[in-house]
Amino acid sequence: MEAFIKDITPYLTKMRRMFHAYPEVAWTEYVTTAKIAEEIEKLDFEVEMGQAILHPHTRMGLPTEDQIEKEEQRAMEAGINKAYLYLMKGAFTGLKAYFDTGRKGKHIVLRFDIDALPINEAEDEAHFPFVHGFHSNRAGYMHACGHDGHTAIGLGVAHFIHENRHQLNGRFTLLFQPGEEGGRGAKPMVDKGLLDDADVFLSGHIGIHSLNIGDIVATTDQFLASTKINVEYFGKSAHAGLEPNEGRNALLAAAASSLHLNGITRHAGGATRINIGTLEAGSGRNIIADYAKMQLETRGASTELNEEYMVLEAMRIIQASAALYDVTTNVEIVGQAPSAECQEEWVDFINEAVKASTNIKNVIPKLPLGASEDAAFMLEKVRNNGGAANYMLFGTPLAAGHHHPCFDYDEEVLPIAVESICRVILGWQ
Amino acid sequence: MEAFIKDITPYLTKMRRMFHAYPEVAWTEYVTTAKIAEEIEKLDFEVEMGQAILHPHTRMGLPTEDQIEKEEQRAMEAGINKAYLYLMKGAFTGLKAYFDTGRKGKHIVLRFDIDALPINEAEDEAHFPFVHGFHSNRAGYMHACGHDGHTAIGLGVAHFIHENRHQLNGRFTLLFQPGEEGGRGAKPMVDKGLLDDADVFLSGHIGIHSLNIGDIVATTDQFLASTKINVEYFGKSAHAGLEPNEGRNALLAAAASSLHLNGITRHAGGATRINIGTLEAGSGRNIIADYAKMQLETRGASTELNEEYMVLEAMRIIQASAALYDVTTNVEIVGQAPSAECQEEWVDFINEAVKASTNIKNVIPKLPLGASEDAAFMLEKVRNNGGAANYMLFGTPLAAGHHHPCFDYDEEVLPIAVESICRVILGWQ
Amino acid sequence: MEAFIKDITPYLTKMRRMFHAYPEVAWTEYVTTAKIAEEIEKLDFEVEMGQAILHPHTRMGLPTEDQIEKEEQRAMEAGINKAYLYLMKGAFTGLKAYFDTGRKGKHIVLRFDIDALPINEAEDEAHFPFVHGFHSNRAGYMHACGHDGHTAIGLGVAHFIHENRHQLNGRFTLLFQPGEEGGRGAKPMVDKGLLDDADVFLSGHIGIHSLNIGDIVATTDQFLASTKINVEYFGKSAHAGLEPNEGRNALLAAAASSLHLNGITRHAGGATRINIGTLEAGSGRNIIADYAKMQLETRGASTELNEEYMVLEAMRIIQASAALYDVTTNVEIVGQAPSAECQEEWVDFINEAVKASTNIKNVIPKLPLGASEDAAFMLEKVRNNGGAANYMLFGTPLAAGHHHPCFDYDEEVLPIAVESICRVILGWQ
Amino acid sequence: MEAFIKDITPYLTKMRRMFHAYPEVAWTEYVTTAKIAEEIEKLDFEVEMGQAILHPHTRMGLPTEDQIEKEEQRAMEAGINKAYLYLMKGAFTGLKAYFDTGRKGKHIVLRFDIDALPINEAEDEAHFPFVHGFHSNRAGYMHACGHDGHTAIGLGVAHFIHENRHQLNGRFTLLFQPGEEGGRGAKPMVDKGLLDDADVFLSGHIGIHSLNIGDIVATTDQFLASTKINVEYFGKSAHAGLEPNEGRNALLAAAASSLHLNGITRHAGGATRINIGTLEAGSGRNIIADYAKMQLETRGASTELNEEYMVLEAMRIIQASAALYDVTTNVEIVGQAPSAECQEEWVDFINEAVKASTNIKNVIPKLPLGASEDAAFMLEKVRNNGGAANYMLFGTPLAAGHHHPCFDYDEEVLPIAVESICRVILGWQ
Repeated sequence: MEAFIKDITPYLTKMRRMFHAYPEVAWTEYVTTAKIAEEIEKLDFEVEMGQAILHPHTRMGLPTEDQIEKEEQRAMEAGINKAYLYLMKGAFTGLKAYFDTGRKGKHIVLRFDIDALPINEAEDEAHFPFVHGFHSNRAGYMHACGHDGHTAIGLGVAHFIHENRHQLNGRFTLLFQPGEEGGRGAKPMVDKGLLDDADVFLSGHIGIHSLNIGDIVATTDQFLASTKINVEYFGKSAHAGLEPNEGRNALLAAAASSLHLNGITRHAGGATRINIGTLEAGSGRNIIADYAKMQLETRGASTELNEEYMVLEAMRIIQASAALYDVTTNVEIVGQAPSAECQEEWVDFINEAVKASTNIKNVIPKLPLGASEDAAFMLEKVRNNGGAANYMLFGTPLAAGHHHPCFDYDEEVLPIAVESICRVILGWQ
Repeated sequence: MEAFIKDITPYLTKMRRMFHAYPEVAWTEYVTTAKIAEEIEKLDFEVEMGQAILHPHTRMGLPTEDQIEKEEQRAMEAGINKAYLYLMKGAFTGLKAYFDTGRKGKHIVLRFDIDALPINEAEDEAHFPFVHGFHSNRAGYMHACGHDGHTAIGLGVAHFIHENRHQLNGRFTLLFQPGEEGGRGAKPMVDKGLLDDADVFLSGHIGIHSLNIGDIVATTDQFLASTKINVEYFGKSAHAGLEPNEGRNALLAAAASSLHLNGITRHAGGATRINIGTLEAGSGRNIIADYAKMQLETRGASTELNEEYMVLEAMRIIQASAALYDVTTNVEIVGQAPSAECQEEWVDFINEAVKASTNIKNVIPKLPLGASEDAAFMLEKVRNNGGAANYMLFGTPLAAGHHHPCFDYDEEVLPIAVESICRVILGWQ
Repeated sequence: MEAFIKDITPYLTKMRRMFHAYPEVAWTEYVTTAKIAEEIEKLDFEVEMGQAILHPHTRMGLPTEDQIEKEEQRAMEAGINKAYLYLMKGAFTGLKAYFDTGRKGKHIVLRFDIDALPINEAEDEAHFPFVHGFHSNRAGYMHACGHDGHTAIGLGVAHFIHENRHQLNGRFTLLFQPGEEGGRGAKPMVDKGLLDDADVFLSGHIGIHSLNIGDIVATTDQFLASTKINVEYFGKSAHAGLEPNEGRNALLAAAASSLHLNGITRHAGGATRINIGTLEAGSGRNIIADYAKMQLETRGASTELNEEYMVLEAMRIIQASAALYDVTTNVEIVGQAPSAECQEEWVDFINEAVKASTNIKNVIPKLPLGASEDAAFMLEKVRNNGGAANYMLFGTPLAAGHHHPCFDYDEEVLPIAVESICRVILGWQ
Repeated sequence: MEAFIKDITPYLTKMRRMFHAYPEVAWTEYVTTAKIAEEIEKLDFEVEMGQAILHPHTRMGLPTEDQIEKEEQRAMEAGINKAYLYLMKGAFTGLKAYFDTGRKGKHIVLRFDIDALPINEAEDEAHFPFVHGFHSNRAGYMHACGHDGHTAIGLGVAHFIHENRHQLNGRFTLLFQPGEEGGRGAKPMVDKGLLDDADVFLSGHIGIHSLNIGDIVATTDQFLASTKINVEYFGKSAHAGLEPNEGRNALLAAAASSLHLNGITRHAGGATRINIGTLEAGSGRNIIADYAKMQLETRGASTELNEEYMVLEAMRIIQASAALYDVTTNVEIVGQAPSAECQEEWVDFINEAVKASTNIKNVIPKLPLGASEDAAFMLEKVRNNGGAANYMLFGTPLAAGHHHPCFDYDEEVLPIAVESICRVILGWQ
């Protein structure tokens, strides 16, 4: 193991930097998927893409058809394999890689999320990716949550399985999931049945808490349930000087709605969240705005807190804000993640599994995620089927918080994460 | 006159439709200006463009350099004369056309505004320009205020001057002004000195009130003074689930600011207006928005009401809203128009001037504009220099209000307007 | 006339100061009415009070029964004539005084409003009533709109009629109207028929504009139509620490409603107003507020602007704000005044009537009221019956604006106002 | 013990009902204190009152001097002992009762809070106190948090100490604390030194969670730190029709502030709360409100969350809301409670102490308080001095939540609570 990890490390760094430099957001990970496919096909995995791995009707929060077309055009121009593009056509991004050792054993499913964020990456001398020249070359997009690393880790684990294919037992599925941001990609994979016969499920995240290299976290709790909502307000335009009273102001409806949503009263039953992430309204300075749209999300420490309290409050406020300004509204739920829990038994299991490692210095039994993660759909599915499901954290110092333009992590976390997962695999042999 | 008007009418319609089909917004009227130049150069006018006619530092509300470049690229691709483009480079659009009869007489300055609006034009069977195939072929832009007609009228008047150049006395300046929307183009023309030696100034508007064809309005009052303001809020992004408290929310600052601005208390001294026309904020759903920008405008029945009350209230509210959310703000005044008045004497003058017309059926002495118009800078300048300055309205039924996607007027107003202006010219001989 | 005015002046000052020192708000003017009755009964007028002069069902904005009882108790303790109190029982305040000369002639109705405001009067050395010891001795109440003066003027005019009873022709009705503030007292007097056979109606106001002593304003326009609205919100209380999510917050509904009401978009058709004058909500700091109440008013330059725009907008916003916070609401219209106009003929009439006066220096033909005045109900009634109806202003410098704790006027306006009215009476002989 | 508990039960019920029927809010518990004094003086305790037990300068949230005077007048009229009233003069309510056995042993301090709430008690057939005729006879006030029971329990414990005075060791201090609501009474008792030499401190609460009779909770966590804030806004009044622009609107400042305060972003570090409990603004419908006041509170799961986040956010928003409306503000902190923790050792101690009881059926080791409790000042003080400090809960079903007009509990909890405390006393012998 030590030797494998040592050897794979430069590859992990190279992959991570390649993915980092070309960030793609949810449902547009054409180039990313194609690159993963190229790498993993070298390793004797069976690769499936497109409609074979995603339920078409539960992919939430899709781009518009125009945007999809433009993104596919871009992928084409980037020179990816046309066959891949053909399979992914219509925003069916992501990848399933499957390897059967032919020997009896567990079916272990590992999940790695691959999408980036619509953030402008920092370009200053304090930002490692910029200094080392692998910062985003797509303006407006950034891997600011570490999924570039997750993708690299997945490829590292694939190498391990490949190298040890004659010793390992059972079957392995690696899911390179699109659209984790916004809680969009996990559900259609679950709905397509990819988790149906999993005995073991494992996923995880680098960072989250700022820890030391060598720290890993065996299990995670406080997955916030989350709902992603798009809101449109439709008013009536009018000349703001000549006849303002003739307008019905969609901008003000959205503004009012934002303030009132942010003021949803705290719940004594546990943590909740609300964020209006984007608001766009109006067409010109001297025209009463006849259109506004908002992207927002609610969260709750439990699925109940989120769905029975936050979402219901939000829905009422969105409607009432329309009434305030006499406009109409259209509300769409475009993403969702439940809350989830890791089984306690994993703490001992992981302690045992990694005890021989000299790289892994410290196993923290449990830390909170404190965020939403649609891996929760997979954790839930596998547990409900009687399987073992876990979500780990891989410690690294963080240059800035997740989703921040200066977000960055220590690349030494990559081999640690690969080793942790590989040792868990060995633990299930 | 009757014959001239009859002959010129098809030309007016053709020009109007040409301009209507290719709308360009403030400071990007490259193609429009080039077309005007082509037409007017045939008529022996001296044409000046670019820095010769606009004070470079008082052009407010310019696009960004990137946008300007993109628009110039577009103009290039549209195939306009490169020499024109060279002159206009850097958002110096618009045109001055000058004709000196060589005979003593008044210097008459006529002003026609040429810019369009960022509105999606209606495409339905009730919309005349759509039915007749001359609707906007630039998605997102529309001549929804009649400036396409104004431009055509200007060309019609130029033809009249040209045809009568051996009979007319004095000098004529036709200003084809860019950027009337937002109150941006008149001031730099005034500041460049184009009105300095005007004896007579005349401008006007088609529509405003829904009247009959044949009605004209001799003078206008209630020019609302106006100030156009751009506001930016700068906050701090953070993950909305993991550490919302670390963010500083620019979106909510803009939303709060919108509501509070709209609630500026009415002033007992006369009409005021406030409109937040556009608001854009945030980069992603699960990120605390670190940036927001708004375009807004204030108006007042007098320059004092606008500048001493509305603008001051707005400034305080904009700042206080930043403090509410602990964000910083940047405020820029990007357009301005004073209030103005027409001299009473014009009522009799115009009645006298048009009395021989069979097309002009009815002269209404005075109607309110009820909006802002940066021609007010020119009216003010000429009056202060002791000249005669007037602003007329040319009656037409309106399919919908100004700035509405279904805005349209009866093209029969065009020859009426040309005739009115020409008869005023004759009146000053 | 000059002699009468000179003689009556000390009486006017005395009366004004007496009324000023004992302010009573709408429907509680028991002591004020009783004092008027005492004065006027000395002058051979027939006095009517109580249900004889007010329609019981159109008295809007009454105090609660408890409050009425408390106020009647106070009046009792103040020692007023029990017979008067008996007539006024149940908030039937105000007075009609009638004098018939027995000779043919016009029936002239004069109206004087008598109520005060819930304002704490200034007590400082710059405030004339305080310095001269006749400031309010009822904490929380103040004659801050000049109705103390109006009442004194009414008594002065009564003296004039009494002194000249053998010379004058026709009949005279003096209405001492309760509850002008809030637009509450005029309508029930009209509905009771008190204006039905009026040939001439005259009322007026001291102040409004800060003018010189000796200036009078012949006619008034811009009576703002007005509607007075009470709003209650009913939510659900809950412990703000233990279970805030169980509450439904009436305080926040009222707060939201206040902001959104204040933001009703301006109307291009003319002046409008909105004011949320009072808001009370909540019972304790750590309890989610289950109750809130607001007193507000809308106004418009025309009855249509007020009732078809402002009131409708307000109603929608009040309801929508309830929906925002999931509370219920109760809305009650408690006062109303239409807009009104004075006949143009009055300008000449008044100029003629006062031309002999040495005290009245200057007749301004018309000034705007710019406020609401329920005398408008009376003006409208009389005009509709074919009578002559007018509303004058009596000039005085003002120490501070109406309804301000430092409001005060120059007492020299009192004889000027009496003289103006008496001269109008003579004009109709 | 069983016999004592059986005998004391009717007394507990009687006392509870007596206190329930005469609720007094913070710093006005004159009659309540006097009744306690009467009862406890029969039992050989040394009683101290007034300035001897409360630091005069750290009593926060006092009524105004006028109110204090009125309340003392009321207490006088209620016929309480004048000597007591003399001691309490100036809002020094509450009581310390001290008993020294003369034998060596621990100094045990027990604390019972005695104040009521400004809530209208329910008067319907489902409300036990109403049905049994002991509901509040002070309209607007109610024991809606169980402090009536706490007071009765304190007297019950005093009886136990008295009866066993020859067997018990050590010293006993019973603190009957005023002003727990609003976090006002504990700190001045601590600051006066009453906890300085305590070896053991115990307090507790009935209810909080709806449990069965016979359930007790050994220790409590999640004391929310809390800060109580009063806010005033000072604007400028003006006539809302004539010159609304001259006003500066304190009502709208308070309304805006309420909404923005309620929208303070959630903190990822733990539970927080904000409540604007009361808002009063404005003096009349047609006057721009020149004054507003609000009572609010913030809370946090830790003192840091409350004081370093919620209070700082609130302060900024309160100031910025003043700037929004150009008014000035006055902010006063009128109450405060830190967070606190019970020592873990108490769980075993209490299990041991009550194991012989037949009435106490079930000991729950720990439940959250989820609210603020100024006993936290005492817990903290005693722990910092090296003492043992605990806060228990005594289970009862609840008819409605705390601070609700229908709040009620099962009176059988009273003897259970007395027994629990007495058994703890015995445990420390």
